[in-house]
This record gives sequence, C-alpha cells and structure tokens, in this order.
Amino acid sequence: MNDVTLFTLPGVGEVSSGDDLVALFLTALDAAGRTLEHHDVVVVTSKVVSKAEGRVVAFDGTAHDRERLIGLEATRILRRRGDLRITETRHGFVNANAGIDHSNTAAGTAVLLPLDPDRSARRFRAGLARQRGVDVGVVVTDTFGRAWRHGVVDVALGCAGLTPILDLRGTLDATGRRLDVTEVALIDEIAAASNLVMAKHAGTPFAVVRGLAGHFFGEGSVADHVVRRAHDDLFR
Amino acid sequence: MNDVTLFTLPGVGEVSSGDDLVALFLTALDAAGRTLEHHDVVVVTSKVVSKAEGRVVAFDGTAHDRERLIGLEATRILRRRGDLRITETRHGFVNANAGIDHSNTAAGTAVLLPLDPDRSARRFRAGLARQRGVDVGVVVTDTFGRAWRHGVVDVALGCAGLTPILDLRGTLDATGRRLDVTEVALIDEIAAASNLVMAKHAGTPFAVVRGLAGHFFGEGSVADHVVRRAHDDLFR
Repeated sequence: MNDVTLFTLPGVGEVSSGDDLVALFLTALDAAGRTLEHHDVVVVTSKVVSKAEGRVVAFDGTAHDRERLIGLEATRILRRRGDLRITETRHGFVNANAGIDHSNTAAGTAVLLPLDPDRSARRFRAGLARQRGVDVGVVVTDTFGRAWRHGVVDVALGCAGLTPILDLRGTLDATGRRLDVTEVALIDEIAAASNLVMAKHAGTPFAVVRGLAGHFFGEGSVADHVVRRAHDDLFR
Repeated sequence: MNDVTLFTLPGVGEVSSGDDLVALFLTALDAAGRTLEHHDVVVVTSKVVSKAEGRVVAFDGTAHDRERLIGLEATRILRRRGDLRITETRHGFVNANAGIDHSNTAAGTAVLLPLDPDRSARRFRAGLARQRGVDVGVVVTDTFGRAWRHGVVDVALGCAGLTPILDLRGTLDATGRRLDVTEVALIDEIAAASNLVMAKHAGTPFAVVRGLAGHFFGEGSVADHVVRRAHDDLFR
C-alpha cells in the first residue's frame, strides 16, 4: 500500500478574467521545483476557476443585492435564517447563498460559481495533458456547510479523469457478506483532503494529491454522479 | 508549507472484545517498519473501537431486529424509506440506521457505535503517549451518508489532541475584508482524507496522517464542537 502525499503551491497571484489557469498552475509548479506524475490529482478552487472564466459580478454588499444575485443563481430556496439562505443552485448543489462569494474579491464585486465545473475540470486536465503529457485527475472544489454538523468542508463541484463515486456493490466483506455501505464519494474525500494543505487565508488555489490507487481514476462527473436529485433526496 | 502524508497499516487481524487497540496498532506500526512522530494523527475506525469495547450485540438480520436495535441506539427517527432510517443517535449524530453495522462482523451479530467516541480517542492517545512518549492526535471515524449528495464519506465521531473546528472568525482575507466562511471542520477533513488510504475491503482499521500544521493540534471534542444540536439545525 503506497503512501498518499499532498502538497500545495505558493506564490500564485491574483487571478483575473481570461487568465490561463493551466499556465498559472504550471508556473507555480515549476517555481516550487515540483513535477507532475502519472495519476497525480490536481485540485483547483472554484474561486480561481470562476475568476478566470469571468464569473465576477457587481455586488454592493447589501442584503438586497445578495437577494438579487441569489435570484439569478438559485433555482430554489430550501431554508432562510437571517441573511443566510440555503439554496439549490442551477447545478443542483445545495449550499449557502448559492455559493456567491465576496471574500478575496475586488471591492464592489462578488464571484459566482463556475457555470459548468465539470467542464472546467475537463479543460484544465486537457491543458495539462497537452502541455506536460501527463494523465492526471482534476477536481474543482468549493467550501460547503453541512446539515447536522458544524463547520464547513471542501467538496467537489467538478472533476475530470476520476471516478467520483466508488461503487462497492457486490463487494464481499472479510466474512463473505455483502457490504452495507456501497458507494464511497471518493471525489469529496479528495476535496476534503486537499484542504489539509490549503489554508484558507494563504491564497493557494492549487494542491496536488499523489499516490492514489488506480481505482480512483476513470470517467464520470460530479453533475451526473454526485449531485443527488431532489426527487431522490430525503432532505429537500 | 510542508507536505502532508498518509499511510495505513496492513496486517491487523480480527479485533475482539477486550483487545488492547494501542498494542494492536503499535504491533502493526512496528511490523510495517514505521515510527510515530510528534504531531502525527492516528485515525482509527469506530468499528474496531466498538469491537474492542464490546459493543457487539446479537442481530438476526431481520428488519424487525434492526428496528429493535435502532430503538436502543437512536433518540429520534428523522426519515424512513424502505429499510433505511435516518436517525439521530444518543450522541447527536445524524446517520443511517443509528450506525448499526453488520458487515465484517461475526454471523448473528451487529456492531454498535462506541458509547463515547471522544473518550475512546482520549484513551487511545493516552496509551500512545505512555508507550511511545509521543504527542499525537487521534480521530475515531465512521462512514456516513450526506444530505444532497450521493455517496458516503468518513467523518469524525471522536477526537483527542486536535482542534476539531478551526475558527477563522476575525481573520481578514487578502483584500482586508473579514472572511465569510469562518469555521472549518478540520477533523472531518482528516477523517475523509484517511479514507484515501483505507480501502473499505482491505481490513485496515488504522491510518496515520503526518505533516499537519500546528494549528490542527489543541483541545476539543466532536461531541462539544462538531455535533450540531437540533435547535440550531435547519434540517431536523
């Protein structure tokens, strides 16, 4: 059993609309004296994906303006408390205030989630394959709260080259019985793990996870395999 | 910024009531040619904690008997679908079927969650300090489903020597504004990360996480800091 190693890349500056994220990543990678290896996983925060893709809008900081943006981004409001809205976004994510983010953004602006984070991940992966000839996985992450437990964790909004959910149905346990727990959200475990090396305030939008087993790699998307549809959900 | 490394320990056999988990862990550690270092984190699955603590009960595999056990373990049923019950346990955890587990258990039995997983973690940590003179963190984990997203992830049921939730309130972002996202559930990110090296079917109840930043270490418990009380929860 191999070790799994995570590292992050310092020195990535402010990201703006139209920036080439792959180039920014590779510059930071080279500056850190690191290389990419076969079956590494590159984790990218959705914040910089959104900035590079121009998903930055005017926002005056008022509750009224937040409601306006939530109205654009969310298809449903599940709960309200004070300024907090628990929303279902157009992607089907359930999160706080539709993921609208005004920390680490220019004054008078807010950052929206990427339109299609799986597509963003696929593009990033294709760019790395083209420029470095490596087969890696890519995860685009954001920070979400949870029901029932305090604190936020990083989860996957999009992925490429990876198996989002490991399906153990039919797998037998050590005593020969079928496993109860059958679908493991590997992609969210990678996302959560990446935050062990990406401190919130350090401005490091990239992490690399190395040494994952071969069954982590494959095809699939967060939209198709991780997002639970409302009709299949006991808490909507 | 240091790398974070995770590894697991093979060769741990079946665990039974009364077994000394610290001894089992250290035997596996030594057999793997590994040593513990200052500020390592040892992750232990609740399954083996429960077995060692004798939390194994008769279970005939029927829906009726499952209901009986759920009745013993849960204080509230939040949702029902088929055989599935989403429960609130005596600890305040919200999970499936009160965490009653009959995979990898002897025929005719089921394993219940530890009575006090934080205490289990503290005892394990004290044992490691006594036997090896190291200051490490300990996390006791289980596998939980989530609202809104498919797949299960590992979460922390108990911890010792660690800061369960990193409180960033008052922290400024790179532009000088206060961060929106203020409390990061580090302990659940460690738990999720540990599953990257602990394959479900490989019978490896221990993992070690090495290289976490100093602010991960401190005081706190899952019961006091992570479990969200019902009155503070929008989804109960």
